[in-house]
Amino acid sequence: MKFKTEYLTLNTSTKHAFVNITSQVRKTIKESGVSEGLCLVNSMHISSSVFINDDETGLHNDFDKWLEQLAPHDPVDHYRHNDAGEDNADAHLKRVIMGREVVVAITNGELDFGPWEQIFYGEFDGQRNKKILIKVIGE
Amino acid sequence: MKFKTEYLTLNTSTKHAFVNITSQVRKTIKESGVSEGLCLVNSMHISSSVFINDDETGLHNDFDKWLEQLAPHDPVDHYRHNDAGEDNADAHLKRVIMGREVVVAITNGELDFGPWEQIFYGEFDGQRNKKILIKVIGE
Amino acid sequence: MKFKTEYLTLNTSTKHAFVNITSQVRKTIKESGVSEGLCLVNSMHISSSVFINDDETGLHNDFDKWLEQLAPHDPVDHYRHNDAGEDNADAHLKRVIMGREVVVAITNGELDFGPWEQIFYGEFDGQRNKKILIKVIGE
Repeated sequence: MKFKTEYLTLNTSTKHAFVNITSQVRKTIKESGVSEGLCLVNSMHISSSVFINDDETGLHNDFDKWLEQLAPHDPVDHYRHNDAGEDNADAHLKRVIMGREVVVAITNGELDFGPWEQIFYGEFDGQRNKKILIKVIGE
Repeated sequence: MKFKTEYLTLNTSTKHAFVNITSQVRKTIKESGVSEGLCLVNSMHISSSVFINDDETGLHNDFDKWLEQLAPHDPVDHYRHNDAGEDNADAHLKRVIMGREVVVAITNGELDFGPWEQIFYGEFDGQRNKKILIKVIGE
Repeated sequence: MKFKTEYLTLNTSTKHAFVNITSQVRKTIKESGVSEGLCLVNSMHISSSVFINDDETGLHNDFDKWLEQLAPHDPVDHYRHNDAGEDNADAHLKRVIMGREVVVAITNGELDFGPWEQIFYGEFDGQRNKKILIKVIGE
């Protein structure tokens, strides 16, 4: 059995961002030497997400607008989480919608993906260092 | 360590559909010879889902109505993803709500499930071929 | 390859509850003897969730209020799932939002977690026995 653990650190220049991390995941899988197995990719923070969807700017704009409707940032005093001086309760809710993690299959040493699948880090409370975990297990 | 990879192809006759794929997952697990392990089941497309819930028609009607409220198809020009001529932005959002994948446990060679758990493929932009990946790893 | 399967049983005193189960997951990982691997934690029921977020009471209040807005319990006759006498259709929808399962990494024999990550059982139709599955695989 083979394993590899990798940590990515990101610091987005905006509060909200979607960052394509597919190439870093592919690189970690290649380095692991695993030809058949599973790969977990998760945000190590609770106000950001890892998810799989389309690499299309229009859709990312749609995601951002939609998440703001489902879990608005304002008014910040609408949320009890913000009572102690935080203002990121909405980011915790947005991350729930988009998800914490993805588990992907490795077949013949490659990400076993459909034609449009791309892995994204979704940031909802950015402008500071955040870590992503990539864990490969298999043979 | 043992592995098995299976691809299902579905083409639903309606734009929206929920298809119970539990028996196909059980069959793949049986064929894998794995008695203890994990099984990943994911949509290989980004406008459809794999999820676990109840096999109950009333609930599926509720899901469909609810998803239309949270992420309405119309007006299609509400979404920037549709600017280039697509009309399926809402399907990408619906898939986010329902999720891309499930990971299930295999114990004593069987799906380790609660009494009501069933695995579904959720289609939100159907009437064309779509693929589902089943990946079994274990011993 | 090593495996361990554990079942937790919970019976919450209220219909809705968030229960921190991180210590039980850590205990199972320790007992498994796995130093590198993956751990699946899932609800075995379809009206409750397992998810990762902050152990902060204000945020849990926000979750509860927000879920009630996205998937209200009342009026119960709004849902076709309730036609046969059930009243928990909303619990199935709330569980969809919060998710069925988490997959977490084990590195050096420990949960490989960010500083604020905690694992919760989310109950939306409680006051009866519910089971949670913990499955560890690795080496």
